[in-house]
Amino acid sequence: MGLIVQKFGGSSVADKERIFNVADIITRKYKEGNDIVVVVSAQGDTTDDLLAQAYDINPDASRREVDMLITAGEQMSVALLAMAIEKLGFPVVSLLGWQAGFTTSSTYGGARIKRLIPDRIRKELDKKNIVVVAGFQGINRYGDLTTLGRGGSDTSAVAIASVMHADLCQIYTDVEGVYTADPRKVPNARKLAEISYDEMLELATLGAQVLNNRSVEMAKKYNIELEVLSSLTRAPGTIVREAVKMEKMLISGVAKDSNVARISVIGVPDKPGLAFTIFSRLSSKDINVDIILQSIGRNGTKDITFTVTMEKLKEALAVLHDLADLIGTSEVVYDEDVAKVSIVGAGMESHPGVAAEMFEALFEAQVNIQMIATSEIKISVLIDEKDADRAVAAIHSKFFSPDEM
Amino acid sequence: MGLIVQKFGGSSVADKERIFNVADIITRKYKEGNDIVVVVSAQGDTTDDLLAQAYDINPDASRREVDMLITAGEQMSVALLAMAIEKLGFPVVSLLGWQAGFTTSSTYGGARIKRLIPDRIRKELDKKNIVVVAGFQGINRYGDLTTLGRGGSDTSAVAIASVMHADLCQIYTDVEGVYTADPRKVPNARKLAEISYDEMLELATLGAQVLNNRSVEMAKKYNIELEVLSSLTRAPGTIVREAVKMEKMLISGVAKDSNVARISVIGVPDKPGLAFTIFSRLSSKDINVDIILQSIGRNGTKDITFTVTMEKLKEALAVLHDLADLIGTSEVVYDEDVAKVSIVGAGMESHPGVAAEMFEALFEAQVNIQMIATSEIKISVLIDEKDADRAVAAIHSKFFSPDEM
Repeated sequence: MGLIVQKFGGSSVADKERIFNVADIITRKYKEGNDIVVVVSAQGDTTDDLLAQAYDINPDASRREVDMLITAGEQMSVALLAMAIEKLGFPVVSLLGWQAGFTTSSTYGGARIKRLIPDRIRKELDKKNIVVVAGFQGINRYGDLTTLGRGGSDTSAVAIASVMHADLCQIYTDVEGVYTADPRKVPNARKLAEISYDEMLELATLGAQVLNNRSVEMAKKYNIELEVLSSLTRAPGTIVREAVKMEKMLISGVAKDSNVARISVIGVPDKPGLAFTIFSRLSSKDINVDIILQSIGRNGTKDITFTVTMEKLKEALAVLHDLADLIGTSEVVYDEDVAKVSIVGAGMESHPGVAAEMFEALFEAQVNIQMIATSEIKISVLIDEKDADRAVAAIHSKFFSPDEM
Repeated sequence: MGLIVQKFGGSSVADKERIFNVADIITRKYKEGNDIVVVVSAQGDTTDDLLAQAYDINPDASRREVDMLITAGEQMSVALLAMAIEKLGFPVVSLLGWQAGFTTSSTYGGARIKRLIPDRIRKELDKKNIVVVAGFQGINRYGDLTTLGRGGSDTSAVAIASVMHADLCQIYTDVEGVYTADPRKVPNARKLAEISYDEMLELATLGAQVLNNRSVEMAKKYNIELEVLSSLTRAPGTIVREAVKMEKMLISGVAKDSNVARISVIGVPDKPGLAFTIFSRLSSKDINVDIILQSIGRNGTKDITFTVTMEKLKEALAVLHDLADLIGTSEVVYDEDVAKVSIVGAGMESHPGVAAEMFEALFEAQVNIQMIATSEIKISVLIDEKDADRAVAAIHSKFFSPDEM
């Protein structure tokens, strides 16, 4: 008995049958005597369909009007889910983001939650209502509707759980939990029973799109226990919480990210502060640089290599073009056919052999490593995109050999 | 140059092409230097589609959740229309009912506007924005979304025009204006250039579904000039305003209403107050009784005959059944195959021959009259439903003969 926040993604409420499946999950928890706050995304492809309509009318539609349009998606799904819960005979009320108390920054399309005042949610819980909240949306100081950006419903759910000190925040999705590798690619990938916030964050940034990053950060900050699980199979999922017995597990997962491009600036004059200028200029244009490598080139020049996401490649090249005066006659080359493969594990801090084991797996699979980056709980390598799936499988076998499972 | 409120129904914004057509109408008026507030309904069949989804999930869905669902319809249409106006290069902002300042009673599905505080609309007009408002919706004192009931977008538009003292309120629809009879049935029906509020009200109640009644009442109260016109043909429409030169026109239209049933209570004992009891009981059940006729029956008893709308027939019969003690052995009979045909005209007050002329037309067309009811500007007859179209045509020819046109 306690307060449980449950979040259901768009695929979990895509049609009538699934809506009733979700209503059943919710009302079972309610019958156990829990207070239930549910956060829902728009049904199935609704958001994409609405965006397609918008761009058909005006490809340059203002983000304000786009947010006005797409927030209708969650409005429809909360109402329909509430009706299904009513049909099962339980007291329920649906609330839009602003009714639930979400005040956000004014950046349409990617607003951040500024304040959550859950008075109305509390009032409805006191009345013993199941409360169904529209995820992904809020209101800004102009009184206009905003969206939190893709995956924002996770953030809405964790925000409610944090502010209301929920006992558990369940994120229902279409996968059964967090896996040691992509189960569609690696046949013996296995579901983790537990993972720490930090490992989850590293996995999320590395392209294992199970949980939205901002929501994991918030859960860590407020120490909210998350459970990632499937609304369809109803099998136990993966619990995300502060590391407690992580020593047992060396690494928790292998992730691949193909949404990455490598840029090299070759023959940079050896002037002090030049690398700093390049990276600060990129950062001021909101271009995140990931793996960075600086090496000695010919004639006392340097080569600077780094990676950016594919979407930012063009912009990054433009920034370098603008810096032509500074970088002189250096040559800029880039490669889009690269992938980043990473292992994540809180246990590797105390096991210095992990990196060597990873490189050995890659060597045995004949995969050439272009760049390496490490953090306390993560090792990433940049390799040819065509080798990526093979690399993931090889690394996964090395660390999760069948006899260890 | 002034403030113009323009209302577009769902068919006027049903698809991309029509949205741009409407955007063109709006921006032309804006370019002439006017302040423009636009009120829009949900696109095409959106509301009906959403209702079908709701009732598929839960036929007894609460009206609160139904309103939560269907108000998404106008939210999508205002955003798409605003995007089209942006595309044409004009400054625009869309507002939901509650953002525009509509506070309503708490009756979901049929709320009445309690207050309209157009501060936000005014602020946006001051910024030279075209303001696109979601019709049909508001917010109640619980902070929940409500709808004004079918046709409510007309009311939203007239409310804005009234409170903001607009110079004109244009109601764009899929007909070109108000006709002397249904143009699909009566080939030589003609469009009226002008009609008074009272005549419009009588026509609306009589089944000529051009304008929502509440909106005409409000326009009359605040003396707002309405224009009913088509968004497709863009021909001049019909102006609805206070009667000025109505003497010229004897009658302004012929209307038919088939949504009516006749109930007769035959052989009612001649006790004082009995008719009163019957009608007050019906009224307490929200059953509106229209034409009433009381006549002497056999053996000193009375026959009481009256009409109700088809939807209320069952309920009315149940009320009479409950009154069995009172009305004793009287027999209750009813007839669903009747229609009410009416002529409306502010001019008939001063022309006593109008009724006779109408009855003559019906006699010549061999139509039998069952009941007659008159008001200062209206004469209605109840006849067999099968005769109704013939009756309308005959009456229309009598009053609007081609040589008079």
